[in-house]
Amino acid sequence: MKLMSFKLEGTEKYGVVDSSGRKVWDVLALAEAADKEFPSTILAGIESGEQFYESVKELVEWGEQNGKDELLHPFENIKWMAPIPRPKKNIMCVGKNYRDHAIEMGSEADIPEHILVFTKSPTTVIGHEDSVDAHTDVTDELDYEGELALVIGKKGKNISKEQALEYIFGYTIINDVTARDLQKRHKQFFIGKSLDTTCPMGPWIVHHSEIDNPNELSIQTTVNGEVRQESNTKHFIFPTEEIISTLSQGMTLEPGDIIATGTPAGVGKGFKPPRMLKSGDEIEITIEGIGKLHNTVN
Amino acid sequence: MKLMSFKLEGTEKYGVVDSSGRKVWDVLALAEAADKEFPSTILAGIESGEQFYESVKELVEWGEQNGKDELLHPFENIKWMAPIPRPKKNIMCVGKNYRDHAIEMGSEADIPEHILVFTKSPTTVIGHEDSVDAHTDVTDELDYEGELALVIGKKGKNISKEQALEYIFGYTIINDVTARDLQKRHKQFFIGKSLDTTCPMGPWIVHHSEIDNPNELSIQTTVNGEVRQESNTKHFIFPTEEIISTLSQGMTLEPGDIIATGTPAGVGKGFKPPRMLKSGDEIEITIEGIGKLHNTVN
Repeated sequence: MKLMSFKLEGTEKYGVVDSSGRKVWDVLALAEAADKEFPSTILAGIESGEQFYESVKELVEWGEQNGKDELLHPFENIKWMAPIPRPKKNIMCVGKNYRDHAIEMGSEADIPEHILVFTKSPTTVIGHEDSVDAHTDVTDELDYEGELALVIGKKGKNISKEQALEYIFGYTIINDVTARDLQKRHKQFFIGKSLDTTCPMGPWIVHHSEIDNPNELSIQTTVNGEVRQESNTKHFIFPTEEIISTLSQGMTLEPGDIIATGTPAGVGKGFKPPRMLKSGDEIEITIEGIGKLHNTVN
Repeated sequence: MKLMSFKLEGTEKYGVVDSSGRKVWDVLALAEAADKEFPSTILAGIESGEQFYESVKELVEWGEQNGKDELLHPFENIKWMAPIPRPKKNIMCVGKNYRDHAIEMGSEADIPEHILVFTKSPTTVIGHEDSVDAHTDVTDELDYEGELALVIGKKGKNISKEQALEYIFGYTIINDVTARDLQKRHKQFFIGKSLDTTCPMGPWIVHHSEIDNPNELSIQTTVNGEVRQESNTKHFIFPTEEIISTLSQGMTLEPGDIIATGTPAGVGKGFKPPRMLKSGDEIEITIEGIGKLHNTVN
């Protein structure tokens, strides 16, 4: 099941992608038609507990069986939003989690021995098809980073690697857009990672039941159609289980937390000479089993 | 005016410290008595706009004039909470903002040329008189850092240094408790700064109108009564105006955002041999014009 947030005639809604892959069921309208109470957002749904997924699934099946097709909207009629448009804390991001990317950013010495985590402000989040601001007044080195992101499904602390996957609600795609000059200048990454609009997220969340192994998914980023990043999450230095377990040692993870797992080689800064983003560029990130996140630089 | 959050008989409330400095007016109860609508939390009040401060001030004056003393509670009857118990994004923290602290953590080479900012998860926040968990299962090097914190009052982006102070709602105290071993091991500071309960905040927010100059306040930290940190915010490498201006270049600051301004020399790690926190330690941070934040390590 693919859960997405969107606007229809200016109203914020969420829904489930139908079997055609081109339309979305309006969950709250279905709930009203079925005379049921549903959480008002995907985030509230995830927070409401594990029954949320089954309830939504049953509701959509009810819609299909009862011909509620007027509550099924073609993608061309909606405005995309990030599945969680306003996270309740910063997005947590693993840095240098692919060996070849660590090397392209410096040398073998940059391959981390321990997980490295920084954050992006919630104000960075935009949706699929939204525009990334070029921020030419503050950076000359805007760069892309295609990443698999985990969405936490339940509260947990001191989680073992063995149980880590049970804490995942689902998966989405993030473009961890980075101002390389600011990242370097300010040493700690927060400033260079937190310019407004620099966290495209989406197009939807795929429920964990549809992903056999998050550590074996192909990932590709193109800029203007040219392949720049091409890898597989099997090359993670720190696999999904270890990321969740390490972060949760002494720190409570909560439903709706978002963790970006790092980017493979092929970022603009890794080219000689560097190939930074510029106004008009189209970035597309594709992850196996999840989908394709498309954004334009404004 | 000092605005604080607290629990009374299990109910979350907020209020204003009275002229004795030992009691708190229950704002929501006063509002009810005066038949007025008030925001339900300090954060919601700050978000509601600049008239919030004046409205609260008038309400308390009304309470004083009309002898509503049954809505005035001695501190011994309440449980303290952080003034903003659950921030809507991570707490932003400036690192190495006092020359002598940068040097004690390494050498002259560690004095930053540019502002360094990392974040703490909202799950770290606790109130005055709350206990900091010793986290002995994950760290051997828990350390204190007394800091002045700014609470942003209105939305802004690309703020000039000249206008920066206008964006401050008020000031509070933060103990940026840090797991030094994790901070070092994971390079980016987020993990070592985000263990649960490692952000004592309070005891209240002092409105900006009562602080002439945030860049000239004495600051002191004691552990078990012994002075460990003793400095003045006039020694900031990057003064308040520059912190706000730099952070807001390309990143929107929002009402309720919290920015910790860095800690002076005298942290446990700076001693030879280091003097780390242990269970039972009492930490007290005093900042001129603001107050005293007291916590115990559990």
